[in-house]
Amino acid sequence: MNSPVDAEEPERRRLTKPGRKTRDRIIEAAAELMFHHGVGGTSIPDIQAAAGVSASQIYHYFGDKQGLVLAVVNFQTDTKLDQQRPLLDNLDSIAALRAWCETAADRQDAMGCVGGCEIGSLASELAETDPSARTDLSASFDRWELPIRSGLARMQTRGELSEHADVTALATALLAAIQGGMLLSQVRRSSTAYRHAVSAVIDHIESYLVP
Amino acid sequence: MNSPVDAEEPERRRLTKPGRKTRDRIIEAAAELMFHHGVGGTSIPDIQAAAGVSASQIYHYFGDKQGLVLAVVNFQTDTKLDQQRPLLDNLDSIAALRAWCETAADRQDAMGCVGGCEIGSLASELAETDPSARTDLSASFDRWELPIRSGLARMQTRGELSEHADVTALATALLAAIQGGMLLSQVRRSSTAYRHAVSAVIDHIESYLVP
Repeated sequence: MNSPVDAEEPERRRLTKPGRKTRDRIIEAAAELMFHHGVGGTSIPDIQAAAGVSASQIYHYFGDKQGLVLAVVNFQTDTKLDQQRPLLDNLDSIAALRAWCETAADRQDAMGCVGGCEIGSLASELAETDPSARTDLSASFDRWELPIRSGLARMQTRGELSEHADVTALATALLAAIQGGMLLSQVRRSSTAYRHAVSAVIDHIESYLVP
Repeated sequence: MNSPVDAEEPERRRLTKPGRKTRDRIIEAAAELMFHHGVGGTSIPDIQAAAGVSASQIYHYFGDKQGLVLAVVNFQTDTKLDQQRPLLDNLDSIAALRAWCETAADRQDAMGCVGGCEIGSLASELAETDPSARTDLSASFDRWELPIRSGLARMQTRGELSEHADVTALATALLAAIQGGMLLSQVRRSSTAYRHAVSAVIDHIESYLVP
């Protein structure tokens, strides 16, 4: 690792349009490589080659590899949340929760259950070695949990879900089932574990429906 | 990485007692380092220094780093299963399931939720980069799932758990909750997520109790 050429939050610096395009291209290339090979298995030269940029351009935009990793964490979070936004904004019925998790299961099947969760993999790799990344990954998980909790809270407000349901705990439990289920499915190369994991928690949430 | 000095399943070679002690010391040192720094963040010189051995001793016993990684996967699985054996052999009541998961939550609290699950971390890091490790980690998860499923099956045989309960699916769901809960707890540095995750699944299992 070279030392950073600029440690002052370079991602917030005002960029020209071509500059933003280059920066985005670097992040996308890094995200793709890190998804397949891990952060530790992805070198700056690998990213240079994939993005068609020089090392100095990478250091210019991100300061150092750690800065780029943080950008990748936030890019993956933003991208995946955006992709799933219509589903995420409407998680206020049991059917919607099942449909959302089913979509993710089908996506895993389509990839042969290779790769696991983009966020979960980064979290497991970086939690003990990169405190800034851990903080950002914690915020990322919060951003995933929020639409689940909001949907359950709307069900509760409408009187569909019992007032005894702890919607925060249930939202966390579903996010954990998704993460653990995706890890087991990745290792086993079968979405069955993921499907069982999310079904159990959604069945449990369903038990709080007001008859 | 040097090339292996002996690729022929060196762990099965007959060893003298001092040989076994040296081999165990290398595995234990490697497991400790890999738990804290990941496999990618642990070099052969790191392991040499921690175990007080030469590189050629490591290659003698394990062939190459990959051979040592497989030995670590199996060591971590055996060790953790042995440590929890009395609890694992008796997971045939809701109270026993809760007590087992509570013990793990307390263990996480005692460590400040640092490190996550030894097996889960290895799984996430190695699933896409080391096919042999993925196979062994899949077997490791099976070995963890077995005592959960066996306990539930005994409850079902005794007529305590409804015949409608799919004990295989429920065991997988609990293992996934444990894995996902530990990852969220590691990233958030709080055992709350783990506690919510396992509670939701055990509550769901409880709903199958025959009144």
